[in-house]
Amino acid sequence: MKNLKRRILEAVSNDLEAIEKALTQNLEPYLSIVSHVAEYIIFGGGKRIRPLVMVLSARMCGYNGNNDKTLSIVFEYLHTATLLHDDLVDGAEVRRGNPVAHSIWGNPATVLVGDFLLARSINIAAQTGLMPIIDVISRATAQMSEGEIYQLLHRGDIALSEEQYMELIERKTAYLIQAACQTGALLACAHEDRVQAMAQYGNHLGYAFQLVDDLLDYTADAKVLGKAIGTDLKEGKLTLPLIYALNHAGSEDRSKMETIIGDDELKATEFNTIVDLVNKYDGIEYTRKLAKRHVNSAKEALHLFDNSNTRTILEDLADYVLTRQM
Amino acid sequence: MKNLKRRILEAVSNDLEAIEKALTQNLEPYLSIVSHVAEYIIFGGGKRIRPLVMVLSARMCGYNGNNDKTLSIVFEYLHTATLLHDDLVDGAEVRRGNPVAHSIWGNPATVLVGDFLLARSINIAAQTGLMPIIDVISRATAQMSEGEIYQLLHRGDIALSEEQYMELIERKTAYLIQAACQTGALLACAHEDRVQAMAQYGNHLGYAFQLVDDLLDYTADAKVLGKAIGTDLKEGKLTLPLIYALNHAGSEDRSKMETIIGDDELKATEFNTIVDLVNKYDGIEYTRKLAKRHVNSAKEALHLFDNSNTRTILEDLADYVLTRQM
Repeated sequence: MKNLKRRILEAVSNDLEAIEKALTQNLEPYLSIVSHVAEYIIFGGGKRIRPLVMVLSARMCGYNGNNDKTLSIVFEYLHTATLLHDDLVDGAEVRRGNPVAHSIWGNPATVLVGDFLLARSINIAAQTGLMPIIDVISRATAQMSEGEIYQLLHRGDIALSEEQYMELIERKTAYLIQAACQTGALLACAHEDRVQAMAQYGNHLGYAFQLVDDLLDYTADAKVLGKAIGTDLKEGKLTLPLIYALNHAGSEDRSKMETIIGDDELKATEFNTIVDLVNKYDGIEYTRKLAKRHVNSAKEALHLFDNSNTRTILEDLADYVLTRQM
Repeated sequence: MKNLKRRILEAVSNDLEAIEKALTQNLEPYLSIVSHVAEYIIFGGGKRIRPLVMVLSARMCGYNGNNDKTLSIVFEYLHTATLLHDDLVDGAEVRRGNPVAHSIWGNPATVLVGDFLLARSINIAAQTGLMPIIDVISRATAQMSEGEIYQLLHRGDIALSEEQYMELIERKTAYLIQAACQTGALLACAHEDRVQAMAQYGNHLGYAFQLVDDLLDYTADAKVLGKAIGTDLKEGKLTLPLIYALNHAGSEDRSKMETIIGDDELKATEFNTIVDLVNKYDGIEYTRKLAKRHVNSAKEALHLFDNSNTRTILEDLADYVLTRQM
């Protein structure tokens, strides 16, 4: 696993460096607060998975121009804008081991810098002058926004079905990663079936990424994760491990879980009970299997392409999603 | 004055009806909270000045297609998104005589519905497939966002110069109205000099609109205005009447004003003192004259066009801005 991560990082170190540079340059931080808030969260340990898959998708589809790095940061900015507003909406306290932005700069600056990043993303997309790309990015923006609202409406909803959960994570996470991959292919003027293949890769990668994220909230080492486990549940977010367990538990265990979920203050012992029950009814196992299936589907989508270094990195990235600890 | 308002309303009643219809249809409110929050503020007494000038600009430039109404609501949605976030950022309590949205639905829903309206606006713009229009709208979005941040950074800043204030209201208000007029002309495929003339009209109209807004906060009848006067100052917003008075007051009066501005809790007697001093140093008079100059410049920009009913309505609208009481 260590080897996989090292291999990926070595293969993409130049790309990551160029992406970091573009992320800084495009803030044009003449407004000091934008630079403070945005840099705090943008450079607070993000994995750059979204810009990276865009750049790699473009390359695999034959792109060799100079606009890929600048365009790729749209996907990091959009993601960051969502994080800023999402943390505020959730009343979160910690992200990646650091206090959340709104606890340092307050809600007003956090709302407005989120808006700024959203506007800047749209600007960069518009500057391409390429309608199909603008279309993909504007749709992803709308999907994300609707996903966030859907999540808010279903906060603490013990009746959330697996199907509804899958729809939620598609909007919240999968569409943006899909849009990044699709944009890469479109920038390379790839043939329609290649654009679709990259969209498929991104969609499955996105699902897998979110499923593993949700898993880690039950299974991770808090120190490695950078925040306490159980945070999702504390914020009223029911994710697949728990949804699956709820649907497969006997009535006594189910009502035990429902009581804990309904408790406004989640105690550590209560969370441990939930973890035990989630394990008892195979919620972890089921979620991991589903994530694995999405990773496999992501890799299958790449079969359309000839073997190449870039294809190998994209496959490695998909495998890495399954094994990550943070 | 009454006659002017009645004449405008009669001339545009069909347009306003079509705009209202488009505003409702494009929310597609399958997410109940979007429909509640958005409808509350969208249909809470807005003047529709932004969509209206877009529709009228398109018509004056010869447009006779069917896409104007749908496109026009972009400018009301963008404006509404800003209002939602702005009220939250300002800690406002009342808008148009009603409690602000975040006091009813809470900050989370208000943040997310603002994001939704922003995303929906971008979507509608992208669906035109017309790059110049997408470009204008995406720039206006960025300008507005930067204006909001600029305003936050200069909250309670007694050193805010007239020049900085003018830059602020250009970003916050004038660019969006300018963009609406420009978009109308672009939708009509108007010649470049006509597009520029409409941009000029919108820009000056926007300045005048905001200047009068700032004036009303010192001079209006609170019942007609729908909120207490003095709200801007309470929220730390220094506007032109006060900025001008500060710059022209003797040192004693100036320091009296500075003390009141620095007071966290603005009392009614203190606000009355400010109003007296603003009048003493001609802050109201100066602002009104400047607004009048912008109204005249707006109307002059229309000289490029032949006389027509539509041109008359646009001229009337500019005149109306000066006389409005709310």
